[in-house]
Amino acid sequence: MTDMTDARTYDVVVIGAGPVGENVADRARAAGLSAAIVESELVGGECSYWACMPSKALLRPVIARADARRVPGLRHSVEGPLDATRSSRTATSTPRTGRTTARSAGWRASASTCTAATAASRAPARSRTPRRTHRTPAPGPPRGGRLHRHPRRPADLPGLADVKPWTSREATAADHVPGRLLVVGGGVVAVEMATAWQALGSHVTVLVRGGGLLPRMEPFAGELVQEALTETGAEVRCGVSVTAVERENGTVTATLDDGSALQADEILFATGRAPRTDDIGLETVGLEPGSWLPVDESLRVDGSEWLYAVGDANHRALLTHQGKYQARVAGAAVAARAQGVPLLETDRWGAHSATADHAAVPQVVFTDPEAASAGLTLAEAEAAGHRVRAVDYDMSGVAGAGLYADGYRGRARMIVDLDREILLGVTFVGPGVGELIHSATVAVAGEVPLERLWHAVPAYPTISEVWLRLLETYRG
Amino acid sequence: MTDMTDARTYDVVVIGAGPVGENVADRARAAGLSAAIVESELVGGECSYWACMPSKALLRPVIARADARRVPGLRHSVEGPLDATRSSRTATSTPRTGRTTARSAGWRASASTCTAATAASRAPARSRTPRRTHRTPAPGPPRGGRLHRHPRRPADLPGLADVKPWTSREATAADHVPGRLLVVGGGVVAVEMATAWQALGSHVTVLVRGGGLLPRMEPFAGELVQEALTETGAEVRCGVSVTAVERENGTVTATLDDGSALQADEILFATGRAPRTDDIGLETVGLEPGSWLPVDESLRVDGSEWLYAVGDANHRALLTHQGKYQARVAGAAVAARAQGVPLLETDRWGAHSATADHAAVPQVVFTDPEAASAGLTLAEAEAAGHRVRAVDYDMSGVAGAGLYADGYRGRARMIVDLDREILLGVTFVGPGVGELIHSATVAVAGEVPLERLWHAVPAYPTISEVWLRLLETYRG
Repeated sequence: MTDMTDARTYDVVVIGAGPVGENVADRARAAGLSAAIVESELVGGECSYWACMPSKALLRPVIARADARRVPGLRHSVEGPLDATRSSRTATSTPRTGRTTARSAGWRASASTCTAATAASRAPARSRTPRRTHRTPAPGPPRGGRLHRHPRRPADLPGLADVKPWTSREATAADHVPGRLLVVGGGVVAVEMATAWQALGSHVTVLVRGGGLLPRMEPFAGELVQEALTETGAEVRCGVSVTAVERENGTVTATLDDGSALQADEILFATGRAPRTDDIGLETVGLEPGSWLPVDESLRVDGSEWLYAVGDANHRALLTHQGKYQARVAGAAVAARAQGVPLLETDRWGAHSATADHAAVPQVVFTDPEAASAGLTLAEAEAAGHRVRAVDYDMSGVAGAGLYADGYRGRARMIVDLDREILLGVTFVGPGVGELIHSATVAVAGEVPLERLWHAVPAYPTISEVWLRLLETYRG
Repeated sequence: MTDMTDARTYDVVVIGAGPVGENVADRARAAGLSAAIVESELVGGECSYWACMPSKALLRPVIARADARRVPGLRHSVEGPLDATRSSRTATSTPRTGRTTARSAGWRASASTCTAATAASRAPARSRTPRRTHRTPAPGPPRGGRLHRHPRRPADLPGLADVKPWTSREATAADHVPGRLLVVGGGVVAVEMATAWQALGSHVTVLVRGGGLLPRMEPFAGELVQEALTETGAEVRCGVSVTAVERENGTVTATLDDGSALQADEILFATGRAPRTDDIGLETVGLEPGSWLPVDESLRVDGSEWLYAVGDANHRALLTHQGKYQARVAGAAVAARAQGVPLLETDRWGAHSATADHAAVPQVVFTDPEAASAGLTLAEAEAAGHRVRAVDYDMSGVAGAGLYADGYRGRARMIVDLDREILLGVTFVGPGVGELIHSATVAVAGEVPLERLWHAVPAYPTISEVWLRLLETYRG
């Protein structure tokens, strides 16, 4: 199908060798297409080196220690502060040098077996004569999960450049513990890094522009995380914006819009993301550099016959796992079109539609307590026009939760589509819910009727029994 | 519907006030029927006082400590032996006196709200003129999960009575740590108690008649648990039977069928269960006392119009959660029949059929590693005549598993029904899988097609990503 004697001709050229790009190339190759990956930094992407893996490795000891301390008979034997330099993070990846350890290399090997058939180049990628290839900008490298290389910072914030603020990269890579850390933002990166550095010994103050933490989840998620952060000694200030920053003799001073000022040793900006599509030549194909790229359900850029946008660049769901999901869908769609096979566009949940991007996105926030969700929040479901009912349950009433942690605090909510009697979304907040959420993802993506969920019996005594309580609460 | 002036006339009489009996009464009452519960011991049942709750409370510190020790940066701060007297178990229930603590009382309150409308009696229950009532023997009290009051012991084992062996009750209630503990059996009670007491300081030897541990799960479950038990210093001897026991000067000597003898300070028999239906008057209605009671899908005893058997007594699935599930189904069936509503017997997954008993039973074994399963094993699926394929995955290859525990060891298997492309069963063995299994229970009970499971994206980086690996392995 491809003239392999011309090494510069490929069926598919992928920009970005993160997990998303690798998955696209993998799928294309599995379908018999040739594929090249272009990468300007490290094969493996943001996720492996600067985002998901090191941040979760930083958080795992925090959560495991908190879990142990909540177990009677064990509480008193877990002593001493966490040591950042001995943490899992160090063993997982060494972001400053980009050296790949066995673990992340192993992860990459399992994520992609197509390297033999693809080419990776460190040259910046620009469009030249791309009309005959399928190009898939996964913003190079794809920005794993919620962290990314160039966080959006208030560009006009006075003094910003001189302050040398932390981005998510420094927050996961720093090898010293600042005495005082300011965290600007209230989203996932902000709360995870606040949790980590407070546990590592910093005094953390979180500055949130809006009314609370984790604004994209159900309101109680941010409330419970804020309550717990506060109990560990961190401060959370809502409804404030930073208007200026300066650093003098090592100390950062942040001025707020209420006129007050705060001092700290480091300041982390975790205030959002910008699409990294500014330097890939979008202008050569009539698109605006630096913009998000709207796509259809097969991840093909609106108005294009050959250009796909997979991962953060399309702004559908800025999460590593969802980008990899899109990669599978896009790879299948590219292959089908190359082979002249009609796309199953009428099948909403077929292999060529990234339907879960709208209906069943899961997310786990690795804080203490963990906050996990799948599908829509109540507000999202209502905004989408569904006739719904939110069913809440206090997870401290679940026997398995009480066994898991003394004084367990947590809350669950499921959003019932009253017309179809299926679930549109589920949120769990509490210790140990990070793996439990996949049951919700299966229920939501599988559109399993509530009537049938009664037959999905939770093992006793696990935290999963919250499912039974939710069903009972719904039935009344 | 009921003449409440005669306090001795009820629509439903339930034998056994454990969680199963309480659920039956609760459902009956919710449907407008009157219900009485007869109980000869403690309201709350085996599960609350002598089984699930205290055993899991005993195991929780063991698992939490093991989890913490596998986290780099935390390993060295978890020191010291576990203290049985300070464990969660003590805080959960006090089985020797039967005193209910706040936690188990809270559980009971949530499990049953029907106490006002029911009567509990401590008198032994016998049938007198039962033909006009629905009677539901939940073997009193229902024997929560895998433990029960009167474990089946080799009745003809020489010396047994004099040895005062531990049953599951003593194993969860003992307040001293025997230096050497013999555990006879290889099932769930045996491996859980071996795990607990080895961690509490005993030297444990497990004596298994068969070829390995956990014979009702996939073979690798027993293998991984045995490997881990052995690493903690316990011994596991397979293919041996105890032929005689004696106790002299406090020391127990067990003679084995290979001619060898073992000495210990205590011996625990965890060799199975017998139906506790010997003293409830079955002979008055033509059934054999002490037998298991075969039932139809609505849990009604074969050949009877009015007698139901729910929980362990019917021998369908001897687990607390499954008994409670049966209670819901039986309660609905009793109510429907009382109201003259036709049962939805054609609907395999309707409210009147305990279909999950055959198709989607979940179980979590609280060992280190945890072993969890839902639905059928490969052997069970093949024996049932399904055309299946087993798909295995080494969980150490999952990024989230590597973050959860350094040197993670675990294994996953899913059983695919090749004709319907749905899952018949899933098994996960490894640290942290106890809550993950519910995702499998939803997939199996929900009969979610594999094609759709691709849209149930696991959050990255969690252990749940094993789902993606299993799907990829299946597709090849």
